[in-house]
Amino acid sequence: MPFSWRGAATALAVAAPCAAFALEPLPSWNDGDAKAAILSFVEEVTAEGGPAFVPPDDRIAVFDNDGTLWAEQPVYFQLLFAMDRAVELAAADPDWASTPALEAAASGDVATALGGGEEALLEIVTATHSGLTVDAFTAEVDAWVEEARHPTTGRPYTDMVYQPMLELLAYLRANDFTTYIVSGGGVDFMRAFAEDVYGIPPEQVIGSMGEARFDIIDGEPVVLKDPGIAFIDDKGGKPVAIARHIGRRPIFVGGNSDGDLAMAQWSTAGDGPRFALFVHHTDAEREWAYDRDSHIGRLDAALDEATAEGWLVVDMSKDWKQVWPK
Amino acid sequence: MPFSWRGAATALAVAAPCAAFALEPLPSWNDGDAKAAILSFVEEVTAEGGPAFVPPDDRIAVFDNDGTLWAEQPVYFQLLFAMDRAVELAAADPDWASTPALEAAASGDVATALGGGEEALLEIVTATHSGLTVDAFTAEVDAWVEEARHPTTGRPYTDMVYQPMLELLAYLRANDFTTYIVSGGGVDFMRAFAEDVYGIPPEQVIGSMGEARFDIIDGEPVVLKDPGIAFIDDKGGKPVAIARHIGRRPIFVGGNSDGDLAMAQWSTAGDGPRFALFVHHTDAEREWAYDRDSHIGRLDAALDEATAEGWLVVDMSKDWKQVWPK
Repeated sequence: MPFSWRGAATALAVAAPCAAFALEPLPSWNDGDAKAAILSFVEEVTAEGGPAFVPPDDRIAVFDNDGTLWAEQPVYFQLLFAMDRAVELAAADPDWASTPALEAAASGDVATALGGGEEALLEIVTATHSGLTVDAFTAEVDAWVEEARHPTTGRPYTDMVYQPMLELLAYLRANDFTTYIVSGGGVDFMRAFAEDVYGIPPEQVIGSMGEARFDIIDGEPVVLKDPGIAFIDDKGGKPVAIARHIGRRPIFVGGNSDGDLAMAQWSTAGDGPRFALFVHHTDAEREWAYDRDSHIGRLDAALDEATAEGWLVVDMSKDWKQVWPK
Repeated sequence: MPFSWRGAATALAVAAPCAAFALEPLPSWNDGDAKAAILSFVEEVTAEGGPAFVPPDDRIAVFDNDGTLWAEQPVYFQLLFAMDRAVELAAADPDWASTPALEAAASGDVATALGGGEEALLEIVTATHSGLTVDAFTAEVDAWVEEARHPTTGRPYTDMVYQPMLELLAYLRANDFTTYIVSGGGVDFMRAFAEDVYGIPPEQVIGSMGEARFDIIDGEPVVLKDPGIAFIDDKGGKPVAIARHIGRRPIFVGGNSDGDLAMAQWSTAGDGPRFALFVHHTDAEREWAYDRDSHIGRLDAALDEATAEGWLVVDMSKDWKQVWPK
């Protein structure tokens, strides 16, 4: 059995009442305003009888994935998965790369493929993410996660998660929060590793969704991933997805880009205590530095609103003692 | 605070290890094959170290709502809600009933409204279920549940739930199952009462969904219910919805009609122990008797397949000591 954050978090949760003074929470966060704000919010909403107490069932925390829980440069990791899968599919079937976009992808030409704009991307994602069952797709992602390495760091992608955010997830769960991913990434893609890497089980992963259908093939009932996009879980889609999937308004929201603004606005507009944080990528040395002008994970309107609303803007270079897991 | 099945179920779950011999499970089920089959399945999958053991995280149980957890005659209760709401909306705005179908609904003429076929129904549901926030809609359903009475029994609709099924839900949860509703009913409609009535929290209710969008209205971020249907959670839609929302294949499935056949096929096709039950409405005296020829809740192909596959067919008149809660 591989190491599981879920198991670790459960153990921590069970131990929490006794271990509150023994285990220092958020060890990879530097002491300072950011860490203090998080600790203080969680202490307030969990203080039974206190004025800000929130019952455990309503302690819903939602997190974007790309750029919030793991890195997203030079491009969303799921696109790199799609490109790698295109190479494989084209190798198995010489007729597979039937369009310029698919040809570029199949030859591993990331720049040309991504240069084709949204339409080309949609074509590549659709062609690499459909025509198989959800179970078979999960197995493909599992294999990729095992083998693929990031182009500049050489690390497995699932090692490019943020240690301070892993600690934040575990800390929230130890305080009876339910932690969800609410991300533009594909739901089946993220579920393949979310439980092992983040301790977040499949039913707490919300994402973009492709078309799908039930069928019986050779006597076997299956759910098939079809071409086409059914739902984009980004911007205004995030609060809609949360309303549909969870049916409660989160009290804690974490994001890093303008795509997370609507979910932060909607979550913090609820009654009672609310917390929003935005990860600000300020760390060109240990990770990347980008915000208002970035094509990936642009943080512009949300940076202004975070400042105006007093949401926590996490300064990666200043607030994080350590970026990656050891 | 109203009586909550969730609270009761939680208490039962907490007490379960000690109370297993003190509390007889499923008291409203007659002793016989049906009850024995359920008890035996649950004992097997929870027997640690046994050959059929299933870890708690994978103990996913899904239930249809209409005709499985509560009654559905003479017509789905949500349609009666839509009709009642049409009368209210038309009273508040004389121009509201702008089509023959809406006119019929607004004058309380259920027969004509329902006689208009699927298109008329869609018009009535859309017009009564959109143009307001999810929160406002929930409040409307809450008020209706409080006041409305069933046309023939005179009972509140939420009293027309099946006592044996409430006990089954609680029994499964006491054995570390997670219980979901997976129903053709609207997700926002069902969530308004599912926690109080069934002990099933909003995030474990899966249903049909209308179009929705995020907006900021007078400075207030909201999720608005729009006209139009985004997803029909029936037949082949059910396994798709389960795959999307839960991301695990259930090991226990309960339904009552052909609309539940695909979800039973897909769930029971998974590896390891699986259980499917269909409620057969055989009790004209205490409830209703209908199956192959019914317009509502037709049980035809699924009855044949249940027999062929050895799924449990619950004979309501024979297997249930009591139908309604006292």
